[in-house]
Amino acid sequence: MRAVIPFKQENAKSRLSGILSKTQRQEFALAMLYDVIAAVEKTKKFDLIEVINSSISCAMNTKFPSNVNILLIEKGLNEALNEYLIKAASNTVQDIFIIMADMPLVTEKQIMELTELPGDIVIAPGSGGGTNVLSIHNPDTFHVDYYGTSFLDHLRIANEADLSIAVYDSFFVSTDMDEPDDLVELLIHGRGHAVEYLRSTGIGLDTSTGKLDLSNMKS
Amino acid sequence: MRAVIPFKQENAKSRLSGILSKTQRQEFALAMLYDVIAAVEKTKKFDLIEVINSSISCAMNTKFPSNVNILLIEKGLNEALNEYLIKAASNTVQDIFIIMADMPLVTEKQIMELTELPGDIVIAPGSGGGTNVLSIHNPDTFHVDYYGTSFLDHLRIANEADLSIAVYDSFFVSTDMDEPDDLVELLIHGRGHAVEYLRSTGIGLDTSTGKLDLSNMKS
Repeated sequence: MRAVIPFKQENAKSRLSGILSKTQRQEFALAMLYDVIAAVEKTKKFDLIEVINSSISCAMNTKFPSNVNILLIEKGLNEALNEYLIKAASNTVQDIFIIMADMPLVTEKQIMELTELPGDIVIAPGSGGGTNVLSIHNPDTFHVDYYGTSFLDHLRIANEADLSIAVYDSFFVSTDMDEPDDLVELLIHGRGHAVEYLRSTGIGLDTSTGKLDLSNMKS
Repeated sequence: MRAVIPFKQENAKSRLSGILSKTQRQEFALAMLYDVIAAVEKTKKFDLIEVINSSISCAMNTKFPSNVNILLIEKGLNEALNEYLIKAASNTVQDIFIIMADMPLVTEKQIMELTELPGDIVIAPGSGGGTNVLSIHNPDTFHVDYYGTSFLDHLRIANEADLSIAVYDSFFVSTDMDEPDDLVELLIHGRGHAVEYLRSTGIGLDTSTGKLDLSNMKS
């Protein structure tokens, strides 16, 4: 099985720009990518992990496990992934596991369970109608359509292609890091590089209100 | 096993007051309660379902399944529940399953899985550090502490009492209906009374943006 992780470092996580600088957002994005790669890697289910990078970035100087491959595809998310799926199908690659790079609460446990679910398409919803994991067992009969309520779009595409669907229900998988409120979840439930990075910026948690505490941020 | 559902109809869901009237919020709260009761009931795991109502309300004129009991305890959430736990322990009731009334995406499946997890305390996080399900197998050695980051508080209380803990990871259980954005999740993933009620108000989903569409609301 092959894991595919789309990654964008350039102007990453723009909705966090109110609290994190451009450099911090890039470093944070990279820390999250590390957490996702670590979780994928630990399952030992994937012979290849491909990070699809949408632009040349400093991130790629860093060290990843040996079965991680960095691809530069300077295209939009849908175009890049659909091109990837077509190529995979023509090379008779049967199983493509697309996982987002900004869900640092995911662990080996959820990825293992996701790979074990039956269904031509296994999908894990992200908050706000998103799709955080999409495991595709017939890449020649499916295409992705991210943005907007992609969860509904992916169900529709699978139905139209007569593919069986399994929905994976996980809070930790659904939680991506888009808005400042999402950082609260990371501070409460996180264990890896991303939460460590976030704490290093001085962002904390106000446990009485459940909101971010920005009073100790380094300026 | 006994299920306990705290319920508040008076000024329910105040953070939705920008889009729903007071009456609508009360009706919506009741529709959600119905969905939660239905999911609990379907598991056939509970001989008694107690709704702890914090104020006298019209809701209680409605018909519930015969094993649903309505208690009026005009106290705050923590005080009411802790009083309840003490009483349960003194009556040698061993298993108390506290489930919030505002999580209408929950189904029989998640509740079944929750009841089957090992652990003195089984806890399902809600978004923002909340606690959406708390299954207590030793009510004499535990007390609740809702509000703020209650998830962390409940872990701490269990640790201090040397109780074993299982965390249940579910997007559908974690999703409670507090803010307008939460309604997006209900419109995408909902199946029961609550989403039906919401649609009846004219609230829809803009699938291109993943945001609420309020343009067809009845005034």
